[in-house]
Amino acid sequence: MKVVIAPDSFKESMTAMQAAKSIEQGFKQVYEDNLTSELIPMADGGEGTTRSMVDALQGTMYEETVTGPNGQKVTAAYAMLGDQKTAMIEMAEASGLALVPKEERNPLSATTFGTGELMKAALDKGAEKIILGIGGSATNDGGAGMFQALGGKLLDENGRELPVGGEPLLRLNRIEHATLDQRLLNTEIVTACDVNNPLTGENGASFIYGPQKGADHEMVKTLDKALYRYAEVIFDNLDIDVNNLPGAGAAGGLGAGLKAFLGAGLEPGIDIVLKETGFYEKVQDADLVITGEGKIDKQTVFGKTPIGVAKAVPATSDTSVIALCGQLGEGYEAVFSHGITAAFSIVPGPLSVETAMENGHVYIEQLARNIAAIWKAGN
Amino acid sequence: MKVVIAPDSFKESMTAMQAAKSIEQGFKQVYEDNLTSELIPMADGGEGTTRSMVDALQGTMYEETVTGPNGQKVTAAYAMLGDQKTAMIEMAEASGLALVPKEERNPLSATTFGTGELMKAALDKGAEKIILGIGGSATNDGGAGMFQALGGKLLDENGRELPVGGEPLLRLNRIEHATLDQRLLNTEIVTACDVNNPLTGENGASFIYGPQKGADHEMVKTLDKALYRYAEVIFDNLDIDVNNLPGAGAAGGLGAGLKAFLGAGLEPGIDIVLKETGFYEKVQDADLVITGEGKIDKQTVFGKTPIGVAKAVPATSDTSVIALCGQLGEGYEAVFSHGITAAFSIVPGPLSVETAMENGHVYIEQLARNIAAIWKAGN
Repeated sequence: MKVVIAPDSFKESMTAMQAAKSIEQGFKQVYEDNLTSELIPMADGGEGTTRSMVDALQGTMYEETVTGPNGQKVTAAYAMLGDQKTAMIEMAEASGLALVPKEERNPLSATTFGTGELMKAALDKGAEKIILGIGGSATNDGGAGMFQALGGKLLDENGRELPVGGEPLLRLNRIEHATLDQRLLNTEIVTACDVNNPLTGENGASFIYGPQKGADHEMVKTLDKALYRYAEVIFDNLDIDVNNLPGAGAAGGLGAGLKAFLGAGLEPGIDIVLKETGFYEKVQDADLVITGEGKIDKQTVFGKTPIGVAKAVPATSDTSVIALCGQLGEGYEAVFSHGITAAFSIVPGPLSVETAMENGHVYIEQLARNIAAIWKAGN
Repeated sequence: MKVVIAPDSFKESMTAMQAAKSIEQGFKQVYEDNLTSELIPMADGGEGTTRSMVDALQGTMYEETVTGPNGQKVTAAYAMLGDQKTAMIEMAEASGLALVPKEERNPLSATTFGTGELMKAALDKGAEKIILGIGGSATNDGGAGMFQALGGKLLDENGRELPVGGEPLLRLNRIEHATLDQRLLNTEIVTACDVNNPLTGENGASFIYGPQKGADHEMVKTLDKALYRYAEVIFDNLDIDVNNLPGAGAAGGLGAGLKAFLGAGLEPGIDIVLKETGFYEKVQDADLVITGEGKIDKQTVFGKTPIGVAKAVPATSDTSVIALCGQLGEGYEAVFSHGITAAFSIVPGPLSVETAMENGHVYIEQLARNIAAIWKAGN
């Protein structure tokens, strides 16, 4: 019996690796020595991705003091994975919305400069590949700050460097790319991006994500105009059309900057994690895959971990995929038409969210034991 | 695929039949036309047993106005099962503790007279067999009142009939059995009894169950003495030793009266239900048995429905038994060494008891669907 155990984290209750270990324990209660298990902590590119990648690939966490979205100094974590050549960075660590108190949020001036500094730190550690998670940004600067931190220049019509932020891009006249940190020429940048928003317009970064970063309607219009100008100059100077690139609007347009300045690929986060962790190879001869996440509901089919895992199982195999979660939410049955065989809540009875979170590792082991017992009995 | 679906009721949420139907629906979602299912609503002789038996055996419910434990009139339900020859009676309907407000409880005078009246009503309906559930009694009269209601006479040394209640048995001198309703000679009485308490002494009816019926220490001693006297006269007059009969102390000594006066058999409630409903035959070629109950915990192994069901599955078969419940309580793992393969809570996430009860039928169908899916995938 071979089981591949590939859950996401159960937020605030268990990391993905903790969940995986508890699930494995449950299976061992039933199969004892007749179990081959692969523990592959998963993530979808959002919060917790660095933790899962570090756990999956024997990485090391580092901290760096960098420029926060409002110019203040912040301490940001990133990781070098076990190969010592791949860095894992979450932009929210340096430029995240959670770093700025609500009343201080200003998307006109918020900058991704710190994200660029984190990338530089990773290069200093020898990174030849950088995986970038870009969820949860406070910024709307199209990745301009990141570019500036890495040595690029954004100049106005007088040849002066623009200050950081999204609004100054209205005055962008020329991009100087040659001054960029030369190590980036040999660095692969992979961006975990789960949205398809274009850079500008009514479905663009400013209109869709601006308001939650503190932009009122006037600001939204200003920022949209600024990103439009940004795209024009990028096209003129670099011959790259980011305005029609799906995902360019992710993270306040950081998707556009990553693509235009660094040639970054934009991929669904779960696909990157599946590839990096070797899931595709490890699942080949599995009888069963256990995945999971804090909540499974009708949203799960849109790029969340359990579905990503299910899709990564060869359709021609007999391998079943079972999903565990804290809560089976409304419409969760949608997962059954996306490769999930069955889904269960780990909760053993009526109880509070707090109790469920506190005892998650116990409950998930018990549930895994019971699933293993049915599986064994049925075989 | 043949599944036998034999849950107990989920108290206040679903009758056993409702639970069984929802479980069947869940299995049908997966197996569609490839499912053979037997729905056998279960019970353990306690509350809900009549409902389950009626549902399992196409019975009819009747009501009868009878004498309550305190002499007041009460409306009591009983059932004639589909064969029109078997009656199902719960003594709590006529003589139950729940019929008497706490401040009016008096075990010295409380009587099982109404239970005897209910049995008489069943005889009038043509009963040739009476199944009696005896949980939840308000009485401590050794079944004296039942005997009196059925025509038996309990006389003092002056040949006068004793008043009803437990205390008057202190003055019992002679039992007249010949006046008993003659139909009882041809009536089989089966009593669902899950306790082994003797009639008297420190583990007897009065000492163990008297206090919860309102007896203080003095009353307990009086009642114990009365039941001791009762046993003496029974032995002298009928040559039956109820004092050393396990279970004679059940339901305030009703167990003793049933045995002595009516030759009733005392059996675990679940065993009676399993037999009457034809479980043993129906399970012979089953692949899977689904059972369940509101709560499964360390107490479950002591005669509760899921374990009774599991034990009734031939040990030589490959049939697995899966238990579903509202709550998996502390120590529930004990069931795994008593024939249960796996146990699950139907609850889909953190929520209140009220929500769980209200939506029990939805949750149990969903869980059953998921279990069926694993079962099918594993096979």
